[in-house]
Amino acid sequence: MRVGVLTGGGDCPGLNAVIRAVTLKGIQEHGWEVVGFRNGWRGPLTGDSRPLTADDVEPILTRGGTILGSSRTNPYQEDGGPGRIKAVLAEQGVDALVAIGGEDTLGVANKLTDEGVNVVGVPKTIDNDLGATDYTFGFDTAVHIATEAIDRLHTTAESHHRALVVEVMGRHAGWIALHSGLAGGASVILVPETPFSVEQVVQWVERRFEREYAPIIVVAEGALPEGGAEVLQSGEKDAFGHVRLGGVGTWLADEIATRTGKESRAVVLGHTQRGGTPTAYDRVLATRFGLHAVDAVAAGDFGTMVALRGTDIVRVKLAEATAELKTVPPERYAEAQVFFG
Amino acid sequence: MRVGVLTGGGDCPGLNAVIRAVTLKGIQEHGWEVVGFRNGWRGPLTGDSRPLTADDVEPILTRGGTILGSSRTNPYQEDGGPGRIKAVLAEQGVDALVAIGGEDTLGVANKLTDEGVNVVGVPKTIDNDLGATDYTFGFDTAVHIATEAIDRLHTTAESHHRALVVEVMGRHAGWIALHSGLAGGASVILVPETPFSVEQVVQWVERRFEREYAPIIVVAEGALPEGGAEVLQSGEKDAFGHVRLGGVGTWLADEIATRTGKESRAVVLGHTQRGGTPTAYDRVLATRFGLHAVDAVAAGDFGTMVALRGTDIVRVKLAEATAELKTVPPERYAEAQVFFG
Amino acid sequence: MRVGVLTGGGDCPGLNAVIRAVTLKGIQEHGWEVVGFRNGWRGPLTGDSRPLTADDVEPILTRGGTILGSSRTNPYQEDGGPGRIKAVLAEQGVDALVAIGGEDTLGVANKLTDEGVNVVGVPKTIDNDLGATDYTFGFDTAVHIATEAIDRLHTTAESHHRALVVEVMGRHAGWIALHSGLAGGASVILVPETPFSVEQVVQWVERRFEREYAPIIVVAEGALPEGGAEVLQSGEKDAFGHVRLGGVGTWLADEIATRTGKESRAVVLGHTQRGGTPTAYDRVLATRFGLHAVDAVAAGDFGTMVALRGTDIVRVKLAEATAELKTVPPERYAEAQVFFG
Amino acid sequence: MRVGVLTGGGDCPGLNAVIRAVTLKGIQEHGWEVVGFRNGWRGPLTGDSRPLTADDVEPILTRGGTILGSSRTNPYQEDGGPGRIKAVLAEQGVDALVAIGGEDTLGVANKLTDEGVNVVGVPKTIDNDLGATDYTFGFDTAVHIATEAIDRLHTTAESHHRALVVEVMGRHAGWIALHSGLAGGASVILVPETPFSVEQVVQWVERRFEREYAPIIVVAEGALPEGGAEVLQSGEKDAFGHVRLGGVGTWLADEIATRTGKESRAVVLGHTQRGGTPTAYDRVLATRFGLHAVDAVAAGDFGTMVALRGTDIVRVKLAEATAELKTVPPERYAEAQVFFG
Repeated sequence: MRVGVLTGGGDCPGLNAVIRAVTLKGIQEHGWEVVGFRNGWRGPLTGDSRPLTADDVEPILTRGGTILGSSRTNPYQEDGGPGRIKAVLAEQGVDALVAIGGEDTLGVANKLTDEGVNVVGVPKTIDNDLGATDYTFGFDTAVHIATEAIDRLHTTAESHHRALVVEVMGRHAGWIALHSGLAGGASVILVPETPFSVEQVVQWVERRFEREYAPIIVVAEGALPEGGAEVLQSGEKDAFGHVRLGGVGTWLADEIATRTGKESRAVVLGHTQRGGTPTAYDRVLATRFGLHAVDAVAAGDFGTMVALRGTDIVRVKLAEATAELKTVPPERYAEAQVFFG
Repeated sequence: MRVGVLTGGGDCPGLNAVIRAVTLKGIQEHGWEVVGFRNGWRGPLTGDSRPLTADDVEPILTRGGTILGSSRTNPYQEDGGPGRIKAVLAEQGVDALVAIGGEDTLGVANKLTDEGVNVVGVPKTIDNDLGATDYTFGFDTAVHIATEAIDRLHTTAESHHRALVVEVMGRHAGWIALHSGLAGGASVILVPETPFSVEQVVQWVERRFEREYAPIIVVAEGALPEGGAEVLQSGEKDAFGHVRLGGVGTWLADEIATRTGKESRAVVLGHTQRGGTPTAYDRVLATRFGLHAVDAVAAGDFGTMVALRGTDIVRVKLAEATAELKTVPPERYAEAQVFFG
Repeated sequence: MRVGVLTGGGDCPGLNAVIRAVTLKGIQEHGWEVVGFRNGWRGPLTGDSRPLTADDVEPILTRGGTILGSSRTNPYQEDGGPGRIKAVLAEQGVDALVAIGGEDTLGVANKLTDEGVNVVGVPKTIDNDLGATDYTFGFDTAVHIATEAIDRLHTTAESHHRALVVEVMGRHAGWIALHSGLAGGASVILVPETPFSVEQVVQWVERRFEREYAPIIVVAEGALPEGGAEVLQSGEKDAFGHVRLGGVGTWLADEIATRTGKESRAVVLGHTQRGGTPTAYDRVLATRFGLHAVDAVAAGDFGTMVALRGTDIVRVKLAEATAELKTVPPERYAEAQVFFG
Repeated sequence: MRVGVLTGGGDCPGLNAVIRAVTLKGIQEHGWEVVGFRNGWRGPLTGDSRPLTADDVEPILTRGGTILGSSRTNPYQEDGGPGRIKAVLAEQGVDALVAIGGEDTLGVANKLTDEGVNVVGVPKTIDNDLGATDYTFGFDTAVHIATEAIDRLHTTAESHHRALVVEVMGRHAGWIALHSGLAGGASVILVPETPFSVEQVVQWVERRFEREYAPIIVVAEGALPEGGAEVLQSGEKDAFGHVRLGGVGTWLADEIATRTGKESRAVVLGHTQRGGTPTAYDRVLATRFGLHAVDAVAAGDFGTMVALRGTDIVRVKLAEATAELKTVPPERYAEAQVFFG
């Protein structure tokens, strides 16, 4: 038996740990040949693959990114895409695919399943916004990095009696902001799920200054002020035609400075949240996802995705897995508000 | 209302995060006075307490250990202990207690509940061996530290073609060994739940050397060879009357050296696994435990303990909570064995 | 004898280690009373001070920022400033001052010396650009943080076949860029001392892509393209009247994207480089500076500054100490260029 | 021209950074062929070598250990060793050697120079005990790791009102103990250069407890009590014939417990101090050593060693370089004593 692996979408610490677990267990327990397709769905679309041996994957457990490369290629937007994938798999003798990715990658996996391709999915989203699983790998690492940054910022903010706004990842879901804000002792946490009142934020900031601490405001990149002020997003082009760094974070730092008269600065963590060696938590989760994906392939249980429930790895239907975005529920956000101000 | 907090048993990263969350939420949401009892049950036994204000707990989120101190004092082994505790609580006007601790501390909390003391428990065990909760805080930090150490040891082992045995915490349960071994890419993981065959370990070690990697063996301090060889435990006194450092780890390193003829060394992580700032994961979990303990007190739901189930914090009866040790189940250990050798 | 301490200018990891060393040695070896003046020169100007005891400073060794606060107040720009300082010192019975700061703070210290105030200086610049000392504390920590970020960025850049531009501190001197670029394995390092050719940078970037690595460009915030293109600096207001985040880094990322047709992104490390616990190197250096500043005070050797020469701490005249900026010499920059491209 | 590289003696973070710098600069600036000899002097003795390309060394900057392996083989203790080395070099067309190592490796390099072999030395000692250079790479990493451990131990010691003894590397020189003890805020630091009085240590420990802090005692593995009590060294075999873990550290922890009646524990950092990714400081130093070793080879300046003086890399004669051990001078040890107790 020959099994392919691919990684799609944005990179995420732990991808290599999944690739390693799939390869080692596939080879050692089932005697499979394992091949890696390069750059997401572009690999099986164009036939770009490489064999994966135990020696190839042995040293990659601790490495960030993905040794297979990634892309956002969607075979359903390519001429004859699905057919070409089936042809490539037949040609290379690949019996089943383990597709590691987020909503888009798994959406493709789901459609290909309907067309008879043997796919097992492994969920990947650094934002932790996939509904079918308690957590996804990469999230803990991103929270860890953001928390380390917040820890560092407390002392510099306090030495200069300054407010600091930290913009973290999270376009649609505020999980990274919520967890790093709680872990970092933020004075305010703002998430995309709940539009914020600038006045309220300013009140919290001022109360914090009165208590003689320096306020740290953690804001998800997708958070927006009530009424939807025109906030340029990070990555958009500004009036100079330049890609802008920092969206709501820099906007809010300006607002706070103007309204409070205190110094206020923004920090945008950006790509540092994605890269580097995964935390122990993410390595374990990614490894277990890989091991259980092999079990699903061995059982012929295709069209499924592995998922974490409590401490168990279970299988869910791909169709359900991508059905809805997992956002921060109001009660979890409310829980955190006791620390605001 | 006046609510007391105490921390008992071995220290654990995250204790201060619980104390902070209980204090801040108690004060800000309920207007309680919060007092900290010093050194576990010794505090309420002797009346040794201090008020806890928002300013006292503001800076402790990131700090390891416990600002309240700890002890293993058991009021049921003290003359008139429970009665003295009730008298102290009455005297100091303390209406309810949040007791943070492991099996012993919570066992006392349970008995005191039966005698009419208002107690809510918060589970604490760095070994992750309490049955009623998916995880306890401190565990992730210990695994993180052990994994960092294992990461470091790979390169030194390989440069010198040497086997390294890493002894980690875990007297009765192998969770730290299992998770740090998986996360660190160990060649062998040994846990207290399954006696190991030295011959088998030696085979794995030799296979590893043949593959031109250096073997890293992660062993829980409570793991034992089959047949129960006489292995002195770390902390026991040796023939010189000196407290010994390293038990099964140093023993096994000797065995490997003798049987393989290769250099083999032991590393005992010891107290470094307990201390220091908690990981982001543990800070979030500890904070949420503290917040929910306040809810339980506010609801008058005494004799309960907060616990993690999936991503939810729930309440369980103290009586059930401490009923059984959560050890590594055979299927979890089997899952890891694909990486051995 | 009563000795005052103050910290001026931008904060820097290690300030607290100096304060602690001065206080503990002053008390324990000389029996001095030590007082801390708050917020740089504003403290002695307004009389804002606090006594410093051994217990106050015992726990601050590992803490970033400064427990005394900082400011950029210059007494020579305040009405009767120097006279007010002398009056406050007389009033509070302070016989000598230890002034910890950069060019500005030490420049004031030097002038006050001429007016008869007993001052010993301790050099502080995170940018490492003070001529009279081999290194200043804070620099190693900043380089460490920047290097960790670069380490993380390599894997994400490679997974996405993307160029990443990392903007680090260094307005006038490129030391942080040079050291973190060397330590992080950057493909290009750009410093303020040498205007760069965008074409040359693009060639290096393209060669890097051809060799199948992803280019990481480390650029000091003060670096400029040849001919002086109009590059908005980080911290300046843009056309919207908003404080801009990222200057030359975001500009260069745009240029690279336009000219190479490859994805290119900027990361601006900003305030994360300043904060948090100092590295071991900086704690030792800052501690030794503090100890030797006490020796200078005890010896009555005022108007001097402590400085590192090789492994020794020596004293230099304040007048010389701030005479010239220490920039990256051409041969040090040339040394690094073998790694470009 | 063909240039060989080898690494001898104990491994040390930064070895790979030297190998990378030598290879990249040799290839790109001089067009050399670079070969790596495996396992120290055993490589040129037996002809065991591999070519080193830019791609081989590109990713190794951040990796601990040495990709060439190491050994303690001394060609002068092998039959006809030096002659065999000359024959191998001639056979493989190797014109010059860069030998990276400590006293032993460089001693051999020096003797081989006298016999006409073209050798340039790069100093390596994690203990920082080579006289001719201000610092050696690996030392900063070891101090960093030890300091992180000490940081962690403070909170656990204080929570349990316990003394903790930390045994760090340093058989003949106390540099790691001195620097990590200063950086970690140790209550006592003990070095091999100065025999210690157990009574004095106990007094410091007791004073520390009285001040309500928990004492942390940092002891170099080579430190000894006055009068030379029989202290078994770590690594020696005990009465059971087992290799012992922890020497003076475990001995001292017992003594403190016995004499003070307080709980006291030992932690032996052991091999974790050697491994893993080098700090930024060590990567820069190791890289610069490698670059300057290439300059020495290119200049034909053999029989020399590169060394750090202040911020400059200079060349010294190999003969002088290994002449004497650099121990902690009394004034440096005295400097630290203000923090004891």
